[in-house]
Amino acid sequence: EIKSSAEIPCVSQPKGFFFPSCCPPDVVVWPRSVEEVSALAKICHHHCLPIIPFGTGTGLEGGVGAVEGGVCFSLRNMDRVLDVHQEDFDVTVEPGVTRKALNSYLRDTGLWFPVDPGADASLCGMAATSASGTNAVRYGTMRENVLNLEVVLADGTIIHTAGRGRRTRKTSAGYNLTNLFVGSEGTLGLITKTTLRLYGVPEAMVSAVCTFPSVQAAVDSTVQVLQAGVPIARIEFLDDVMIDACNRFNSLSYPVAPTLFLEFHGSEKSLEEQVTVTEEITRDNSGSDFNWARDAETRGRLWKARHDAWYAALALRPGCKAYSTDVCVPLSHLPQIIVETKEDLVLNRLTGPIAGHVGDGNFHCIMVMDPNDQDEVTRVQEFTERLARRALALDGTCTGEHGVGLGKRALLREEMGPMAIEVMQGLKATLDPKNLMNPGKVL
Amino acid sequence: EIKSSAEIPCVSQPKGFFFPSCCPPDVVVWPRSVEEVSALAKICHHHCLPIIPFGTGTGLEGGVGAVEGGVCFSLRNMDRVLDVHQEDFDVTVEPGVTRKALNSYLRDTGLWFPVDPGADASLCGMAATSASGTNAVRYGTMRENVLNLEVVLADGTIIHTAGRGRRTRKTSAGYNLTNLFVGSEGTLGLITKTTLRLYGVPEAMVSAVCTFPSVQAAVDSTVQVLQAGVPIARIEFLDDVMIDACNRFNSLSYPVAPTLFLEFHGSEKSLEEQVTVTEEITRDNSGSDFNWARDAETRGRLWKARHDAWYAALALRPGCKAYSTDVCVPLSHLPQIIVETKEDLVLNRLTGPIAGHVGDGNFHCIMVMDPNDQDEVTRVQEFTERLARRALALDGTCTGEHGVGLGKRALLREEMGPMAIEVMQGLKATLDPKNLMNPGKVL
Repeated sequence: EIKSSAEIPCVSQPKGFFFPSCCPPDVVVWPRSVEEVSALAKICHHHCLPIIPFGTGTGLEGGVGAVEGGVCFSLRNMDRVLDVHQEDFDVTVEPGVTRKALNSYLRDTGLWFPVDPGADASLCGMAATSASGTNAVRYGTMRENVLNLEVVLADGTIIHTAGRGRRTRKTSAGYNLTNLFVGSEGTLGLITKTTLRLYGVPEAMVSAVCTFPSVQAAVDSTVQVLQAGVPIARIEFLDDVMIDACNRFNSLSYPVAPTLFLEFHGSEKSLEEQVTVTEEITRDNSGSDFNWARDAETRGRLWKARHDAWYAALALRPGCKAYSTDVCVPLSHLPQIIVETKEDLVLNRLTGPIAGHVGDGNFHCIMVMDPNDQDEVTRVQEFTERLARRALALDGTCTGEHGVGLGKRALLREEMGPMAIEVMQGLKATLDPKNLMNPGKVL
Repeated sequence: EIKSSAEIPCVSQPKGFFFPSCCPPDVVVWPRSVEEVSALAKICHHHCLPIIPFGTGTGLEGGVGAVEGGVCFSLRNMDRVLDVHQEDFDVTVEPGVTRKALNSYLRDTGLWFPVDPGADASLCGMAATSASGTNAVRYGTMRENVLNLEVVLADGTIIHTAGRGRRTRKTSAGYNLTNLFVGSEGTLGLITKTTLRLYGVPEAMVSAVCTFPSVQAAVDSTVQVLQAGVPIARIEFLDDVMIDACNRFNSLSYPVAPTLFLEFHGSEKSLEEQVTVTEEITRDNSGSDFNWARDAETRGRLWKARHDAWYAALALRPGCKAYSTDVCVPLSHLPQIIVETKEDLVLNRLTGPIAGHVGDGNFHCIMVMDPNDQDEVTRVQEFTERLARRALALDGTCTGEHGVGLGKRALLREEMGPMAIEVMQGLKATLDPKNLMNPGKVL
C-alpha cells in the first residue's frame, strides 16, 4: 500500500520556529509485514532514498520529520499483539500496537505494561525513543523493559537483537544490541517487533495530592520517600503555574503552589504502610494534608489532569503553540535548577509551566508562545538552550526522555564530548553507511 | 609498574580441557590512573599488542586468558571510591574496587550496592561481564545499575559513555553507549571508572529455606510469588544433589530435595506480609514449613552455604576440578529443562549439582570432573553444549550471566543468528579495528 504524503497526518509547526516545520516525506508506505518492510527498505537502499519510520507521530523532538525527503514507513497496519506469555510475564507486539491497546488486550490476564509517556504512543516507537514517563520511578523506562527487538536495517537485513524468539529476563550473550536500538530514534533501523516485560496488576492503588510551601520542600520529600524505600509508583511535581493551568483547564481547585501528585501500588496492607511513611515525610517538610483519590474514577480524574498538562498549558494563551522541552539532573540538584529556571522564565517574560517525574530528576517546561511573535520565539529558543546547559552544568542531561531528534543535536555534542560523539558516528556509519535511516536526527 | 607475567595469579585449568589452559600474557602492567591506562594502550596500539583487562580474575568463561599473548592490564591499583552522592543514590568507583569493598565503604551511609555474583569481583569487571547473581530478581543486573562508564578504547582514546561526570537516573541523549560496553567482556575497551546506582539498606531482612517434592513445585511457587507482586529479594533454587553437597560441606542438615532459599527485604510490617503470602503459596505447592534465618548471623550462615556451592560441589570428589556453566530460559520452561538436564547427568554418569536464580529463569550446573579422565572431560564438554542447546530450543540463552568468553562463541552464533553476529562484528571492527582488545573472546 503506497500513498502520496498528502494523506499522512502531520502536526504543523509554527513557521520559522527553531524546530523545523512539517517536512513531509516524498512517499508514504504502509507495509503489512516485516517481509514487506525489508523489501521496501531494499528498494530505498538501492535508490539511496531516506527511510523515516513512523509509529503514532507523538514524539516531541521532530523525530518523524522528513528533513531530506524520502519514504515514510507508517507501521500502523502491523498491529498484532503476539505471544502473550502469562507465566513468563512477557509479550511481543508489532509496531502498530499502542500502549493503551496493549493494556486493554491484557485486561483479563492480570498483567499490564506500566511504561506511560502520557501520549498513547506505539510501543515500538516508545522503544525507538527510549520513552519513559510517570511510572518509571517504580517500573523503569523502555531501556529496562525491552527484552528483544526485531529490526530491519537500512539495507533490508532483518535481525533480532537478542536472537530470534528469545525472551529471557536476562542474558549476557554477546553485545547488548537491544539497548543499542532502544533510544536510537529510527536512525539505526526500523523496529518491527518488540518483546516487553509485563508486570502483575497491583492488588490496590491509591493516589494523593500534596501541596508544599517551596520547591525545595517538595523535592526533599521525594528524596526522603525514596531513601525510606517506599516503592512509590508515581511521584510527579507540578509548579504553581502548572497547577494554576490544570485548575483552569479541568475545573479543579488545588492550591496554587508547588505540588506533588503521588500514586502507590501494592497490596491493601502495603499501601497503608507506604502512605503512612510518606505522609510522615511530607508533614515533616511542611506539606499539606493529602487530598485523596481512592477509587478508580477519582484517580482517573487526577491523572487525566496531569496528562492534560499540555492542553492546560496551551489553554493559558488561546491561539498559541507549545513546545515541551525536558531535562534530567541528579535529584539533589532539582531544587536549584527549578528555582533558577522559574526566575529565568519570569525575567524573559515567558510562559512555561513545569511538570516533572521528580523521582527520576526529570522535568518538562511546556513553552507556550505566539508563533507569529518572532521575538518571543527567539526568546523561547534561547531559554531552551539555557535550560539544557543549566542541566549539563549540574551533572545532568539535555534530555531525560524526549530524545535528541532535530533540535538537541548541538546540545548532545556538549553533553557527550567529541570522542563519544565520534564513537556514536562510527556506530551509525557501520549500521547505516549510506546514512539513509532517519537522516538529520540525533547526530 | 610493569612486571613479567610470572607474578600474576592465574587459575590453572585442567590440561586438554575444552576451555583453554592458563594462557599467560607476555607482560603485566599495573597502571595507577586513566592517563596511564591510556598511555599504555597507545603503546600497545602502536605495536599491535593485544590488551587484556584484568580485574579480580573471578570470571567463569576464561575472559582473562591471553590466548594471543599481549599485555595484561591489571587495574587493581586504581582502587578509589569516588563521589558518593547520598541524596542521589549514586557512587563512582575505580576498577580496583570490589563489591564487598564498596559495601563496607558505604556502611555508614544507609546505602548499599546489591548486585552480588557470589565472588568478591571488581565492580568494573562486573560491568564488563554484565554480572548479576542472587539479588537480580529484585534489584536488576549490572545492565540496569550502571549509569556511566569511563572507557579507554583500543587506541587510547578516553570516553565517558554518558558524558563526563553525568549521573542521571535516566537519559535519552543519543545512543546508549553505556549498555554497549556493559557485557562487552573487555573486547571493546578498558573500563576505568563506573558510576553505579545505589539503594537504601532495607530496614529489615529475613531469610528462609523451603523444601519441595519436585522441581515443578518449586518453580510453580516462584512464578506465583512473582505474580502475587511479592518484591522478593532473593529466590534461589538448589537441586537435591546441590543440597546434599551443601549439607556435607557446611555441616548442615537440610532435607535432600528440591529447595528454595528465599530472602525478603523491606520494613518489618512489609516483611510480615511478604512472608505470609509466600508461605501460603509454597504450602499450596506442597512445600515444607519455612526454616527461618532471622538474625544477621543465621542469615549469613545460610547464604554462605549458597555462596559456597562451588566449593561444596568440588568437595564431592576430592582432587577433581570444576566448571560452572549457566543458561537462562523463560520461567515457564524451567521445570522441563531442569528435569531433562538431571536425566542427562545421570545418563552420562556426570556430577553436576544445580543451583540457580530461579526468579530470573537462570541456573548453573557445577560440573565436577577428573581432569585426567579424558573420557569424562569429553562427556562434560558434550553435556555443556547439549544443555545450552536445550536452553536455545526453549526460547532461552546459552548464558544468563557468565558471558561468552572463550567457550561459548559457537553457541552465541547459534543463539543470535548470522546477521546479528555480523552486526556485532561490525561494532567490534568499528571500535577496535586492529582487534587488539581481549582478542579471541565473545565473537
